Amino acid sequence: MLEYCVDERADREDVDVRVVTSGSKLSPEDAADLMKLAAQVSPQLTVVVSPNATLPGPMTVAKEFAEKDMPTIFVTDKPGRKAAGDLEKMGHGYLVVNADSMIGARREFLDPTEMALFNSEMIGILSATGVYAFLTREIEKVIAAIKQKREITLPRVKINSELATEGFFTNPYARCKAIAALEIAEHVAKITTRACFVEKDRDTYITLCSSAHEMLGAALELSREAREIEKSGDHVLRKPHMGDGSIGQKARLLEKPVKPSSSPAKITDT
Amino acid sequence: MLEYCVDERADREDVDVRVVTSGSKLSPEDAADLMKLAAQVSPQLTVVVSPNATLPGPMTVAKEFAEKDMPTIFVTDKPGRKAAGDLEKMGHGYLVVNADSMIGARREFLDPTEMALFNSEMIGILSATGVYAFLTREIEKVIAAIKQKREITLPRVKINSELATEGFFTNPYARCKAIAALEIAEHVAKITTRACFVEKDRDTYITLCSSAHEMLGAALELSREAREIEKSGDHVLRKPHMGDGSIGQKARLLEKPVKPSSSPAKITDT
Amino acid sequence: MLEYCVDERADREDVDVRVVTSGSKLSPEDAADLMKLAAQVSPQLTVVVSPNATLPGPMTVAKEFAEKDMPTIFVTDKPGRKAAGDLEKMGHGYLVVNADSMIGARREFLDPTEMALFNSEMIGILSATGVYAFLTREIEKVIAAIKQKREITLPRVKINSELATEGFFTNPYARCKAIAALEIAEHVAKITTRACFVEKDRDTYITLCSSAHEMLGAALELSREAREIEKSGDHVLRKPHMGDGSIGQKARLLEKPVKPSSSPAKITDT
Amino acid sequence: MLEYCVDERADREDVDVRVVTSGSKLSPEDAADLMKLAAQVSPQLTVVVSPNATLPGPMTVAKEFAEKDMPTIFVTDKPGRKAAGDLEKMGHGYLVVNADSMIGARREFLDPTEMALFNSEMIGILSATGVYAFLTREIEKVIAAIKQKREITLPRVKINSELATEGFFTNPYARCKAIAALEIAEHVAKITTRACFVEKDRDTYITLCSSAHEMLGAALELSREAREIEKSGDHVLRKPHMGDGSIGQKARLLEKPVKPSSSPAKITDT
Amino acid sequence: MLEYCVDERADREDVDVRVVTSGSKLSPEDAADLMKLAAQVSPQLTVVVSPNATLPGPMTVAKEFAEKDMPTIFVTDKPGRKAAGDLEKMGHGYLVVNADSMIGARREFLDPTEMALFNSEMIGILSATGVYAFLTREIEKVIAAIKQKREITLPRVKINSELATEGFFTNPYARCKAIAALEIAEHVAKITTRACFVEKDRDTYITLCSSAHEMLGAALELSREAREIEKSGDHVLRKPHMGDGSIGQKARLLEKPVKPSSSPAKITDT
Amino acid sequence: MLEYCVDERADREDVDVRVVTSGSKLSPEDAADLMKLAAQVSPQLTVVVSPNATLPGPMTVAKEFAEKDMPTIFVTDKPGRKAAGDLEKMGHGYLVVNADSMIGARREFLDPTEMALFNSEMIGILSATGVYAFLTREIEKVIAAIKQKREITLPRVKINSELATEGFFTNPYARCKAIAALEIAEHVAKITTRACFVEKDRDTYITLCSSAHEMLGAALELSREAREIEKSGDHVLRKPHMGDGSIGQKARLLEKPVKPSSSPAKITDT
Repeated sequence: MLEYCVDERADREDVDVRVVTSGSKLSPEDAADLMKLAAQVSPQLTVVVSPNATLPGPMTVAKEFAEKDMPTIFVTDKPGRKAAGDLEKMGHGYLVVNADSMIGARREFLDPTEMALFNSEMIGILSATGVYAFLTREIEKVIAAIKQKREITLPRVKINSELATEGFFTNPYARCKAIAALEIAEHVAKITTRACFVEKDRDTYITLCSSAHEMLGAALELSREAREIEKSGDHVLRKPHMGDGSIGQKARLLEKPVKPSSSPAKITDT
Repeated sequence: MLEYCVDERADREDVDVRVVTSGSKLSPEDAADLMKLAAQVSPQLTVVVSPNATLPGPMTVAKEFAEKDMPTIFVTDKPGRKAAGDLEKMGHGYLVVNADSMIGARREFLDPTEMALFNSEMIGILSATGVYAFLTREIEKVIAAIKQKREITLPRVKINSELATEGFFTNPYARCKAIAALEIAEHVAKITTRACFVEKDRDTYITLCSSAHEMLGAALELSREAREIEKSGDHVLRKPHMGDGSIGQKARLLEKPVKPSSSPAKITDT
Repeated sequence: MLEYCVDERADREDVDVRVVTSGSKLSPEDAADLMKLAAQVSPQLTVVVSPNATLPGPMTVAKEFAEKDMPTIFVTDKPGRKAAGDLEKMGHGYLVVNADSMIGARREFLDPTEMALFNSEMIGILSATGVYAFLTREIEKVIAAIKQKREITLPRVKINSELATEGFFTNPYARCKAIAALEIAEHVAKITTRACFVEKDRDTYITLCSSAHEMLGAALELSREAREIEKSGDHVLRKPHMGDGSIGQKARLLEKPVKPSSSPAKITDT
Repeated sequence: MLEYCVDERADREDVDVRVVTSGSKLSPEDAADLMKLAAQVSPQLTVVVSPNATLPGPMTVAKEFAEKDMPTIFVTDKPGRKAAGDLEKMGHGYLVVNADSMIGARREFLDPTEMALFNSEMIGILSATGVYAFLTREIEKVIAAIKQKREITLPRVKINSELATEGFFTNPYARCKAIAALEIAEHVAKITTRACFVEKDRDTYITLCSSAHEMLGAALELSREAREIEKSGDHVLRKPHMGDGSIGQKARLLEKPVKPSSSPAKITDT
Repeated sequence: MLEYCVDERADREDVDVRVVTSGSKLSPEDAADLMKLAAQVSPQLTVVVSPNATLPGPMTVAKEFAEKDMPTIFVTDKPGRKAAGDLEKMGHGYLVVNADSMIGARREFLDPTEMALFNSEMIGILSATGVYAFLTREIEKVIAAIKQKREITLPRVKINSELATEGFFTNPYARCKAIAALEIAEHVAKITTRACFVEKDRDTYITLCSSAHEMLGAALELSREAREIEKSGDHVLRKPHMGDGSIGQKARLLEKPVKPSSSPAKITDT
Repeated sequence: MLEYCVDERADREDVDVRVVTSGSKLSPEDAADLMKLAAQVSPQLTVVVSPNATLPGPMTVAKEFAEKDMPTIFVTDKPGRKAAGDLEKMGHGYLVVNADSMIGARREFLDPTEMALFNSEMIGILSATGVYAFLTREIEKVIAAIKQKREITLPRVKINSELATEGFFTNPYARCKAIAALEIAEHVAKITTRACFVEKDRDTYITLCSSAHEMLGAALELSREAREIEKSGDHVLRKPHMGDGSIGQKARLLEKPVKPSSSPAKITDT
């Protein structure tokens, strides 16, 4: 989804995006393969998205890209936060998304439909609560620096529920509902981890997987309520990309986005 | 999302997936680039996903892959249905997803957050109504043929609301809600197309974009109700991939998926 | 319902209403019968409400009333829009309500309960989105002209979702939800028409009828959300009839309606 | 709405319906006028619908029709129940609908939109809870007797929440929700009566009118939940009119309605 | 619940609370027993909470406390309002909570779970609509008088839906929803009283008990909507106890509560 | 609430309940005071309810009751689980309710209304998910032993989400929703603990308190959905107290509760 976030209307001429992935699997062999593909693209900025940046796959990538001096941001779920120190030492940036929890990956429960539903709900939560806006802003700061040939400062942030929602809402209860949604989403991992790796009894682990997905459904509902509150006051924050790749900003539905006077980074500091 | 559908738990050893994309843009140059990347992977089956298969980008791919005799399935939204004849002539398969409508792509309305929300809702609808299950089944039939070294028959289907939901629900009202969801989703394109390509007045096109997304939200709610009805009767259909890549089937939450006696294709005939 | 709209509190002394109908049937014979009854009332303004003004029944009425020089407004659903030219030639007015879709009229599905439910939902949508307010305003303009013995200009409007909602909402998202509701309601006819006149397989046409009614239910929910948003901002537009038959206006619940300085027609021009 | 209930698909050849009304007003003069119109139709059965059968208007009709020996059923709201004795003495039938409460008829609150919304909600409640089915059944019994030239027994029933819902639901909680809806709807009149006839302070009577309509909204939601429960079990009772005017019956969505072996009256005795 | 209302954060040093109860039973013997316990506490103010203050149990207490000159406030449900005269004569205060209706106390329906659910919903309604705020304010007035050694005026109020909600809401529709909730809650007693004391048929009384609880569920939903509206405008009224036991007041979530310039009683007079 | 659970209809003659509490405060002095009151009642079984059994107040009680050989069950929230070992050594029983989380006890946020709402929601969750049924069953086992003069075995259980819901639901998704509700409720404490004891910035701790209460609201909604699913299948488990104090059991709304053949304890073992 992130690849669309930097060019949501497919009309941006200052940026070219290439994505290579290995589907759901993430072995070191897959990683090696992907790096070969990536190498041909010679990216100015690489964003590696992985549920767990501490695993051998992403770590292989991290090491090779460090050696090649390729500026790289690792976007990872909460388990990947433990890689933060290593990534920083290698000169990489990272964005840890605490709320992006593991799915209930048990065969008796997870089929393509349930998998897609879970991801749909997670994307819904991450977008409505401001997490994607946060990620986009951080990546855009780096892109802006590259475009302006300024020195690059890679982001190194663990995005918790407070940080993600800061400055994204006008109504304080909307923000509270968003935080509640993110906290619940984050807590999902505690249940799915147990269901996938600890419990051996089939009834138990199916029940836990299904319970965890119900939690995510409740989180989605909260995030939707947050946005509906903002709609009711006509102050949904929108930050579309402008023609030149900078990020505009607006709050009332029928107004034009305003281009920030200075750098895109500053807009969101308020 | 489709790449995850063939291996939802990342534990399948009979299939290797590689995805290469150009983000949101789809120009012929992007297509050429992607084909270079794809060429190195030498896939046994290629699935090209494009909102509109009639555009120059996907058509370039179609021609080149036809020349190279690479078996290819084009998954496309409703506007792409007009490419069906050409694709068939070139020997390609296609799966047209009528309900997967165009987003409200106007700068004053669409930012990364709104874009991700729309996609989240669309994925939610397509999964809960059975569309992903349909796509997975069709692609799996081809994979099964490749594995068994049988002759490949590429799917050529326009997936409307009735087809997508057939056999996916036990409760008839659940199916009706799913059809209702898909019909509304499909109708979204009529509004967004006008908003993006016809209307010049800003207030008008913003209002139409926003109205179209509200329609999708209502469609999502209907699709969710459909699944909740199935939950209330404990007959949510699940079709997880088994260890050997075949597709199991189950309906009661706490039961084990049953492997079909014969080919995966037959399972869904019931 | 329209008969109540011109005198919602039954306390208006400047207007007398008479309604004659033939229930659900609309044959030319019924029409002839009704005209006999109508003739005795010698109305100053006749409003003919018919789902489809192009049918022989309403057309018989149109011709006879044209001959008798009786000013008549035809209120009709979308299929009736094709009669617009003919009606105009005969000197009649018309108000086409696009969103007022055909019911799922199959015996296996439609009983008195389901019929009343559908109509309840349609009335709910048409009122909450501003369609009844629109119709009332147009009819009142003619009544005002008759009372003031000014020349009568009969309305000739096709009321689409944008037109109906214009000026009816303060919050822009409320309007978008209303437009979404009307678009879905209008789309219902595509499904019911097929279900009633095209499909022969029983399971198919029952399923389609039921799906269409589920769509209407979703549209009702959207229209309700639109009004709830206006309530949350305390700006529900109300336009009650004043004692003298003019139309007052107010937005805050606890304020008094204000009588427009000039003609009722002008109020809604803002 | 009742006129559609006896011929919900407009395809019944054994019955002809004519409706004459005076809109929202109900004065004795209006009544006299309507009787003149009615006289010309020479009905075999007359159904008079009036919110309050004890008022001079309907009473004038009752007397005249009694003199003319015209079999008449008065359908009236709860305040009309006091006319029951008089109506019975005159030989008339009556059906008192307890739940059909008075609207919040204050100028500062009630405009055409609010009026239509209230009626929409009331129709929704009366249909989903079984009240229209009850009314239809009682009227059909008389029509059947007329058709079969049997002696006519006019219905004399006060329809409370228990009576209306009896035999209409399979799931007992669905019935309880329906009863709850009807009880709330009935209670609305206590608030609106006070608001319209007792309270003089504007803020107070507006607030009470609006509160009463909120109560009805909650009642509608309950009645909708009742029907959704029946949908989740696929046992929504449907009683469509058959080709010959008898009443069929079915419960599963995809089955055919079954014609009762004997008289329509017996179907609902179970 | 009331005992927590005077010291919601357990940090108040100017007040000590003791509660003695006999669980759900309320016989005169229980009352005698409780009075013995109460006597040892020598309270400065006694609050007796009883569903029906006219019963022998509470009346025994009333008489004894009157003899002992102990200032006492009786908090009672609607049936207890008939004790108002007697209580006043004995010098006691009373607060009649009209909305606090009797539970559906039939063995076939009411178990500990259903009982707790009903109470949960009733507490939710009474709090969200302002009833607890009303009770707290009245009791605090007396506490303040005791602390300031002023003469005590015991409250004597029958709290109906209008009184409870007055001054508690900013948005007028929020107040209307709260009134609607309280009216429905109050009406519950009509159904449960009949179910518990009149009806002998098991199916009937179970159905009525369950219907009454469904009504309360709808009332809770309305009260929740009322609060959500206030949240959407960021004007939820909060009146926390300050460190010195006075009552602060605030409306915006992130602001500090303001201490009233004079006595706590005056705050709520606005 | 627990005191009502053992005698939900106030008609049980084999048990007498006395409750003494100190409101919201729980100091050792309060405890001493309460014990004096309790001593006069000479209870056969004492149940001490405290949010945190490790605090000096409850511990004082534990020690004194241990010395006096009074059989006591401590019902405590999750923080109290650390007292389990000590309580067991003293011969006491305990029931730890993991889900019963701390309230958001900050002055700027918590007033009597918000406090009562939180408790209402917590009671709603604990009842609808089966926690109260679990507590009741465990306490009843001891009461039964006392009545039958059998040896008493005090319960020592940490009630997590799985344990609470086991055997309480027929539909497996209902159970999953209940578990989800309890998991969310349990997680609330993490946020409120930080808000109350760690964060110093006012905006931060208010926001966290409010977010935690939003989480509880979402949990309540899930628990409600769980019960609604059981209603839709007409299998809400009910376990009312029978006339002799034993616990009956039933599932269909209109059936009679069945008395277990043997001891009440056995019923729930299935």
